[in-house]
Amino acid sequence: MKVYQKIYQNINQNINQNIKQRKEKHMNAEILSVGTELLLGDIVNTNTQYIAKGLAELGINVYRQSVVGDNRNRLKKSMEESLQRADLLIITGGLGPTTDDLTREVAAEVLGKKLILDQSILDGIQGFFDQIKVPMEKSNNKQAYLPEGAFPIENPNGTSPGILIETGEKIVMMLPGPPRELQPMFDNHIKPYLNKYAQGIVKSKVLHVFGIGESTMEAMIEDLIEGQDNPSIAPYCMEQGLILRITARAREENTADEMIRSLEEKVQKRLGEYIYGVDHESLEGAVVKALKNKGYTLSVAESCTGGLVAASITNVPGASEVFPLALVTYSDDSKTNLLGVPKDIIKSRGAVSKETACAMAKGIQKIGGTTMGLSITGIAGPGGGTANTPLGLVHIALAFDDKVVHEEKNLLGDRNRIRQSAAKHALNLVRKVVREQ
Amino acid sequence: MKVYQKIYQNINQNINQNIKQRKEKHMNAEILSVGTELLLGDIVNTNTQYIAKGLAELGINVYRQSVVGDNRNRLKKSMEESLQRADLLIITGGLGPTTDDLTREVAAEVLGKKLILDQSILDGIQGFFDQIKVPMEKSNNKQAYLPEGAFPIENPNGTSPGILIETGEKIVMMLPGPPRELQPMFDNHIKPYLNKYAQGIVKSKVLHVFGIGESTMEAMIEDLIEGQDNPSIAPYCMEQGLILRITARAREENTADEMIRSLEEKVQKRLGEYIYGVDHESLEGAVVKALKNKGYTLSVAESCTGGLVAASITNVPGASEVFPLALVTYSDDSKTNLLGVPKDIIKSRGAVSKETACAMAKGIQKIGGTTMGLSITGIAGPGGGTANTPLGLVHIALAFDDKVVHEEKNLLGDRNRIRQSAAKHALNLVRKVVREQ
Repeated sequence: MKVYQKIYQNINQNINQNIKQRKEKHMNAEILSVGTELLLGDIVNTNTQYIAKGLAELGINVYRQSVVGDNRNRLKKSMEESLQRADLLIITGGLGPTTDDLTREVAAEVLGKKLILDQSILDGIQGFFDQIKVPMEKSNNKQAYLPEGAFPIENPNGTSPGILIETGEKIVMMLPGPPRELQPMFDNHIKPYLNKYAQGIVKSKVLHVFGIGESTMEAMIEDLIEGQDNPSIAPYCMEQGLILRITARAREENTADEMIRSLEEKVQKRLGEYIYGVDHESLEGAVVKALKNKGYTLSVAESCTGGLVAASITNVPGASEVFPLALVTYSDDSKTNLLGVPKDIIKSRGAVSKETACAMAKGIQKIGGTTMGLSITGIAGPGGGTANTPLGLVHIALAFDDKVVHEEKNLLGDRNRIRQSAAKHALNLVRKVVREQ
Repeated sequence: MKVYQKIYQNINQNINQNIKQRKEKHMNAEILSVGTELLLGDIVNTNTQYIAKGLAELGINVYRQSVVGDNRNRLKKSMEESLQRADLLIITGGLGPTTDDLTREVAAEVLGKKLILDQSILDGIQGFFDQIKVPMEKSNNKQAYLPEGAFPIENPNGTSPGILIETGEKIVMMLPGPPRELQPMFDNHIKPYLNKYAQGIVKSKVLHVFGIGESTMEAMIEDLIEGQDNPSIAPYCMEQGLILRITARAREENTADEMIRSLEEKVQKRLGEYIYGVDHESLEGAVVKALKNKGYTLSVAESCTGGLVAASITNVPGASEVFPLALVTYSDDSKTNLLGVPKDIIKSRGAVSKETACAMAKGIQKIGGTTMGLSITGIAGPGGGTANTPLGLVHIALAFDDKVVHEEKNLLGDRNRIRQSAAKHALNLVRKVVREQ
């Protein structure tokens, strides 16, 4: 939908005129989420958190967050109230094609604007459906309407553009509800746009940690956490693992960068071996990068993780340079027939054993013709645990040259948690071994 | 903290007197979360979702959810507004011992009640600290104060009791912010208490849809959506895909079940082939179940999905009965060497082509010795697209007996989205073909 890009430039021109006057007062924002599924507790409101975090980084205060359902009167009331209190109102959801998607219409009404068909958006939506070779429904037409004077914001991941409108002293933004549409739109358009109004600068850097627990990590840098206000350092235990966030507030970007650099150096000295990446880097991204740097290649043989390690690695763009092949040998027969794990090892030591893991690693290294061969075998449950091979027992092996490195882990949690955790430990083993070369 | 149990009985006695009068009108609730960490986006507001879901199950309408920070004026304003609109206000957070925990004080002020020390709560808090052998801080004293006429709700997982107060026509509940304290308190005390006000029963059933877009789906059942109030049917576009939620409200559970069954039957007639499961069923769960029912087995050869299909299937407990093996043949060589895809097919037709996909499917079917062989090859990007094989082009093939079924898809989005979507289309092809046998 290239059309938006052209239109989007107009937003920036228009907006530059208002920056000076707005900069004089500190901007105050509210976030309003629209959707009955939120009121029913069907989904967690991750959009509000995502936006709130982004606004905090820009130093824009959020004083209230609200949720209302797909109900015309209550939505209208809620918008009116928010606009009485806030300079900037960010609304999420209710931009879809169905009859209960009301955000566009109600916002136009509250702002006293007509809804006008934008032919270039309509063409963009039509193009979207042409591309996926699906006929466009008539209901999608309404997504091409904008309140008079509003700008569309491009949405490469869905049919509805975002909408930005400046009216008097207020700025109203409407973003689509699906996070995969909202998040890139917020990062690529909303944040750069709002950055112009930010006072001074707040910068932060995330360090990703793997291999130690939260309390151990905290104990290792307790004095840094307690002794620092600006820059500050804070540990968080997120779904994807432990992170440390360093945040600095300064007049100039250079100063903030230098404040972060200096604190990060201290943290790296203490936790260096456990830090696998910064900001948006993932563990699998760090592994692919490390392999590329050394000119190594890796193939993988998975049992209990069932493809998770391969799926992680191949989610990194360009992984094909270092990763030709994985085998998910879920049955014992496939371990023997495809990887050449001797039948008697599986019989005497078990499919979940150091010996099987090492034989799998050597087997896949050979089949793949790669520098390294990684293997994972374990008991993810819910059934299958015994006294000798309890639930959560995982053997990981990495063949490299003529050597094989082995790790045994006892992991906690349900099937999904054990599998995810095993996959991370396996990736981390590759990272550690490559790092040592 | 046994003391609360005795006090809690009083709540029930007191409340029974009000049930009859309250039952006459339909209760309408709001949820107000207090905490600057929510406004900053440091944490996701899972408490609101937890409570909202519980209230929905009780048939209590939630019309608004709000978040405010630890600020006296804004908290007061927000409580006052909520109490003008709602019969029941549930407040979470701000009950801790520190100076920025204001919920207790502000609620007392808004309700015009004095805060009074409750000695039995103070003893309970002291007992809690004695048990964990940590000296009690003086700041914890304030957690033993209650607005006049309020009841404490026991909290076995923390120091602050919940607080319940009935005043005139309003009910106000204050619950501690940490989910491990809030959730058991809500389940064990708040839900049983509110159950008395519930009017009949609300039941709902979720139908999972794959293979059509939201607007197409809605067009196919538009009359059912618009013509129905109770039971109602509503479409949602969730991260994991499209769903339809049927909700029925009735005096008796049997009646609600029957209302749902009758509407579901109509929906199944129109959308049956696109509905893969109900409630918590996943697409991969439906595939494993369908394979088991027919006694079929499946092996998988993945290129662009890089292990996602295998990882999904193996996330289903018991998948090993139907799934022995997957190959992630990411390089062209591995497609030839391991799956036996002829070199000249890859050369003349390309690695992303119908012919390669079909050869991969036949190859993996043979190697796995399985009833079915599934393959996926495509361009997930970000680079690699050409005019003939554009970004998002995916070929899926399923070998079954001597036949091969093939599908070509043009998928949109970033690398991750294309991969996830390709994996779902592949699983759905298996489901469709097994269904037809």
